[in-house]
Order: sequence, then structure tokens, then C-alpha cells
Amino acid sequence: MTQPTTAAIVAHVTTVAQNAKAASRIIALLSSGVRNAALAAMADLLEERRGAILAGNERDMAAGRENGLDAAMLDRLSLDEKRIAAMADGLRDIAGQADPVGEISDMTLRPNGLRVGRMRVPLGVVGVIYESRPNVTADTAALCLKAGNAVILKGGKEAIHSNRAIAAVLADAAEGAGVPRAAVQLIQTTEREAVTALLKLDRYVDLIVPRGGYPLIRFVSENSLIPVVKHDKGVCHVYVDKAADPAMAAEIAVNAKVSRPGVCNAMETLLVHADVAAAFLPTVARRLIDAGVELRGCEKTRALIPTATAAVDADWDEEYLALILSIRVVDDFAAACDHIARHGSGHSEAIVTADYAAAMRFVTEVDSAAVLVNASTRFNDGGQFGLGAEVGISTQKLHARGPMGVVDLTCRKWIVLGDGQIRP
Amino acid sequence: MTQPTTAAIVAHVTTVAQNAKAASRIIALLSSGVRNAALAAMADLLEERRGAILAGNERDMAAGRENGLDAAMLDRLSLDEKRIAAMADGLRDIAGQADPVGEISDMTLRPNGLRVGRMRVPLGVVGVIYESRPNVTADTAALCLKAGNAVILKGGKEAIHSNRAIAAVLADAAEGAGVPRAAVQLIQTTEREAVTALLKLDRYVDLIVPRGGYPLIRFVSENSLIPVVKHDKGVCHVYVDKAADPAMAAEIAVNAKVSRPGVCNAMETLLVHADVAAAFLPTVARRLIDAGVELRGCEKTRALIPTATAAVDADWDEEYLALILSIRVVDDFAAACDHIARHGSGHSEAIVTADYAAAMRFVTEVDSAAVLVNASTRFNDGGQFGLGAEVGISTQKLHARGPMGVVDLTCRKWIVLGDGQIRP
Repeated sequence: MTQPTTAAIVAHVTTVAQNAKAASRIIALLSSGVRNAALAAMADLLEERRGAILAGNERDMAAGRENGLDAAMLDRLSLDEKRIAAMADGLRDIAGQADPVGEISDMTLRPNGLRVGRMRVPLGVVGVIYESRPNVTADTAALCLKAGNAVILKGGKEAIHSNRAIAAVLADAAEGAGVPRAAVQLIQTTEREAVTALLKLDRYVDLIVPRGGYPLIRFVSENSLIPVVKHDKGVCHVYVDKAADPAMAAEIAVNAKVSRPGVCNAMETLLVHADVAAAFLPTVARRLIDAGVELRGCEKTRALIPTATAAVDADWDEEYLALILSIRVVDDFAAACDHIARHGSGHSEAIVTADYAAAMRFVTEVDSAAVLVNASTRFNDGGQFGLGAEVGISTQKLHARGPMGVVDLTCRKWIVLGDGQIRP
Repeated sequence: MTQPTTAAIVAHVTTVAQNAKAASRIIALLSSGVRNAALAAMADLLEERRGAILAGNERDMAAGRENGLDAAMLDRLSLDEKRIAAMADGLRDIAGQADPVGEISDMTLRPNGLRVGRMRVPLGVVGVIYESRPNVTADTAALCLKAGNAVILKGGKEAIHSNRAIAAVLADAAEGAGVPRAAVQLIQTTEREAVTALLKLDRYVDLIVPRGGYPLIRFVSENSLIPVVKHDKGVCHVYVDKAADPAMAAEIAVNAKVSRPGVCNAMETLLVHADVAAAFLPTVARRLIDAGVELRGCEKTRALIPTATAAVDADWDEEYLALILSIRVVDDFAAACDHIARHGSGHSEAIVTADYAAAMRFVTEVDSAAVLVNASTRFNDGGQFGLGAEVGISTQKLHARGPMGVVDLTCRKWIVLGDGQIRP
């Protein structure tokens, strides 16, 4: 295949964005009945055309093997009938969720007789830039349509044939259900220049959501003229307070580290109050080591867990996404909070304690997207919080903080109902 | 005065940002009692030290006259005892507003016994970049402190001595009331490089608010690694529907254009349904012309108002901020909505109509920060909407849309209260 020129890439991306903008005006006015029927049709058509999707995926898998992708990457890339069925079920779940669009709230009657309130409306056009996993294509497109938006998808090079097959199914199903085809568009080229071009189109695109590793997130932040909601790294902490129930603390620590180490809400650092370290650490260390976790610790930790290697400074800022855990013994509650403020990424932090005052202080003082008392960090998730499917977990403070669900793909405009008021 | 080097500017701005970040952790935990007492102390000290502020302002005014600033600019820059008293009263009003910080909402009990909800917390550090008017210094600092944030102020060159005097008063008053001095910091240099440096400090700064003309807004959007809430231009429309009460329509049109033409919620374009143009336009034109408004119209408009000049394409996208109005006769409701979608800036649009269906359609279909029925666009304002003082009127869709009050200077983190839950 010949390399497209930069001009051709910019032209393609601009056309996609213009089509999305035009479609978004129509989609915003569709009833939720039409949008939900389109989601159901998408689910059915994904299953019906699984042959084409699997064929596209096989091309990606072959190229991936040829290019030496590792086993974990190949597993994320791979689709089979069961994964396609799960994708379709995900879309049906989204269709069944409550519809936020059109809700009017906070309507007040002002002294001059004006009724002033807010109406929830779609954002317009959402651009999602992501890496490898092809199921993101279906999930994100569905969430955006549910919220009344048009979506522009820019997936990774590795999954291009899978993504093309899935996006074609989604657009066909949308069109069949009375939704503009351009509700779901995939950028057809995989060059980085397509991302750069998209990030400049603030005339047409209302929100950019980057999902992927730090270099992608950074590139998007540095180049976007469009507002960005980042789904950045999770350097999550569990702090075992001196008043912790040791059995509960061990359960939570093991769950937070081991249940799914490759995700952003997994614990990366365990902080233990000095008063309970001697009693707590050896026991929990045995369970973690048995589960295959490599331990890295501060000096006090290593005095209690001889097999732990020495943590270096960089360990405290590292998102391992693997069966590795750094452990630090802290002198007191304030030292735990300081460590989190200095090294945390503002994602998910938990305290284990039986002390009411410590629990309340932790909830108040720790500034992360989710702050948990006596629960695993792994609960920071849209499904677990009752939001349904999520676009990702935002680590920024503006617009969406924590799990970003359908509601965060909308905004609220002000509406004012008068009977001739003018401003004095 | 010698020009500071780029390295010196970057060092100064970085120190300011680091101090703000450290202060923000302390401010976030102050009670609203302490924050409100500091606001009251700021108000008192502004009045007490009005001599120093007026002296600083006199230096700015002298430099402004020397540099040939026009009368309107000089008026915006100028302070007197009355304006300082108004500034102080503004701070007292903000102190009296409800405190959003710490509010816990949407607490639900999940099937596994977890209590999941949201707590409203300060954003952290807010950077405000603005031009000329020195009263912005006091207003914005007060709003940021009210919401529990530290603020970094970067004012215009013209007002540097006024701003320095005001910022020193605010920091002194804060410190006297038990709030860290670094709650309010002014960047001391006026070079554009200071803005560039600030926009890169996403490690320390959580939000950038640019207030000013289009070149400033664009520069900030293009260079910021920090999330931005823009207060961009207002190309606002009033659409006179065929079912409009002509007397009401004339009142609203005149008010929207004439009551304060230099502000962003003033009408710039009047759209009139063809069926009522002949009856409506000549009358309203006489009133507008009497008020000193220059009229520019489409051909149909000019047939009805012979003194109107021909509007050119650029007129429909222009924010005049002056006694100039463009007028277009439209064939129907849809043409009015199309014109707004194509030329509006998403700020404030009003319909005048007695027709229920037209009113509902306008409110649903027009996608602007404020959509008004039978009321002047001039009502799009934090005070008029019952929010109290505002940082500005956001024309973007994310985080804050429309008047940006104290609540929009906060965010919500998730809190989770458990009793040992782990994720299966």
C-alpha cells in the first residue's frame, strides 16, 4: 500500500469531521427510541456479520505475529465468537441504560418572572483516540450514540482491519435504523499525522478522549486545540492505618494488587503505619509472594520482609501494571497522605482503618478521583459505581473525574423562559 | 527597567506555581468560616489602603495616556474611591454566598454494601489570564478563594501597578486571616513569555481561564497543556418569529442591542421571519436608529429599511461590541436555526414568539450556552441567573457552559465507604 500524503490525510480527516458535525445536528434531535433501536441493531449486526469481523481480525493477528507483538498484546488484539457476543451484549446493555439527553433540571423562578434552568444536551462530536483493543471501537461508538453524539474513531495500526470491519457494521446498522451513517466514522488511515490533523479541528470536534499509554496521552495534550478528557495512569495506593483490622487489610491489599494487575485501578504501592508494620507485613507478604508478586520495599519494609528488593526513588512513581508492588512503612497518617500527594496520580486511593476520625480525614484530605475506605481500589469503575459502561476513568479534574459514563458525554445548556423581560 | 531574561521569567512563574500548589493543599482544608473571614478582611483592607491602590492606578493611567490608549480603554483602566468601594462590596457579596466545598451528594448503596457518592472539592490551582480591567484582580481572586483554590493572576501590562497594589492587599489580608499568602499571587512580569511558561505547568496548575479578546484566547488554547475554560466571543441572535408579539419583539431587540452594546451577551444579529418583516422592521428600525445604532441588512431588509447599508458576508460572523446591528429576513423557522448554527458563537440566542411549538423547538434545537424565549439575550449572566458573581461566561461545552460561578471552580471526587469489600 502506498503511503498517503500529508495533504491527503488532512483532507480525509477534515471530511470525516465535517460529516460528523453535520450528522451531530441530526442525531441530537433523534428520540431515545431511535437511538436505542440503532444500538440494538448494531448488536444484532455484529453477531450476524461475525465472519467478516473475524476475517479482518485474522489479518491483524497475522500481521501482529509477523511484527513480533508479545503474547499479552496479541491477546488484547484477538477476537473470537465469544468476544464478539460480549461486544454485542455490551451494546444491548448500553441501549437499556437511562437516557440523560433532554433532562431539564434546576429550574428556578427569578424575581423578574424569568424561569431559568438547565437542559442536558449532547456534546456534539466526540473524537476517541485509542490503541490496540478492537472492542473499544464498539463500546465507545455505542456510548457516544447513546448520549446523542457523533463519534470519530482513531484506533491503533495493529487493529485496523478489525476496526474497519466493526465500524462498517456499526455505520450500516445505524443507517438501517434511521440514524445518519456518519454517526460512527473510523479514520481510515493509521498515520500519526491523522491524529495531529484531528486535534486541530476545533471548529467541528467538541471533545477528544485519548485512551492509551502515556506517550499518546502526552502527544494529545500537547497538540490539541480541542478540550481533552484524559484517561491517564493509575499509581494507586492502599494505606493500612494503625487502627486497621489486619485480616481485612490483607484481603484488600491482595485483591487490589492481584485480582487484575494490568488495569489502572490496581494498587501499585502499599503504605503501612509503622505501629502495625511488624504484625501485618510478614503475613501479607507471604500471601502476595504466593500469588507471584515481586515486592520492592523501603528499608523498614525490607527489615520485615527479607526477600523484598530495595525500592528506588522511581518505584514510588511507577505504574507497574504487573505483579510488582512497592511497599513503604510510614510514621503516621500525615506521612501517608504526603506520600500520596507527592507520588499518586490522582486515580484511586484506599485506607483500611477502624478509626472513624482517620476514615473521615482520609476521605476529606486525599485528592483523587476515587477515595475509598475499607474497600479495594479495584472498585473505581463505572459498572461498580452504578454508572453502566464507561469511556474510561478520567484522572483530570475538569468535566469528568473518575469513571466517565454516558452523562459525561453530554453537557448542560441554560434555558430561559420569559414573557417579554428586558434587562434594566 | 531592564527586560528580564526568559530564564528569569520561567523561574519566577515556576516558583509562583509551586507556591500556589503547596498553598492549595492547605486552603482546601480550611473551613468556610476561615475563607469567608479572609474575604471580608480583603474587602476591608481594599478600602483602608485605597490610597496605595489609587497611586498605583495613577501610574497606569499616566502611562496609558502617554501610550495613547483610547477613552474607552482608559475608562476601563481607571479606578476611583467609588470603584474601589464597589470592588470591596463585591467581595463581601461573595463571602455571603453559599459554600459549595465539601457537599456530598448522590450517595447510593450498592448491592455489595458499598456506599458510593461524590464529594465537592476545590480544583486546586487556578490560573487567570486577563486584560486591562483591574477590578478583575479582586473579583477572580475572591471567587477562587471562596471555592477553596489558590489563584495565579496574570493581568495586562496596562494595569500592572494597579494590579500589584490590589494583589498585595489581598495577600496581606489573607495572611492576616489565617490563609496562606500564596492563596493570591500576581505574576510580577508583564511579558507574554510569562503566559507561555504558565501554560506548561500542568504539574502545578489545574485550570486556566483566559479572559480577553480573541488573540489572547487563541494563544492560550494553542499553547496550554492545562485544561482551559474559554470565555470567547458572543455573536448573539434574536429571532423574531412570525407569531411574535411585535411590541414585545421590539422591546427585546432594542434592549438586547442598546442596553450595553460592549458586552458579550449583547445582540449582534436580528433575524426576522419574512411574514412579519414588513410590519415589524420599519418600526423597530426607527427606534434603533434613534438610539444611535448603525444598521446593516440583507437585501430584503434594505427594501424595508432604506437607510440600512448592505451587510457583507463577514457581518454575520462579527462580534461588533458596538452600536452596529446586522439584520436578516429569513424564510422560516428552520432558516433562522440554520443561520444561528452557521454564524453563532454558541453564546446566547433568543426567540420572540407566542407559538408554543416554535418556543419548544427553539429551546431544543438551538445549541448555545443560553437559549431564551421571550427575553433579552442580556440576561445571560451569573447574577441574573442567580449564581452570584461569575468568572465569565463560558462558550465551551465542557465543565462549565454559560456563566461560570463558584461551583464551576470546584469538581467532584468519588468517595466510597465500605466495610471490607473486595472485587470478585
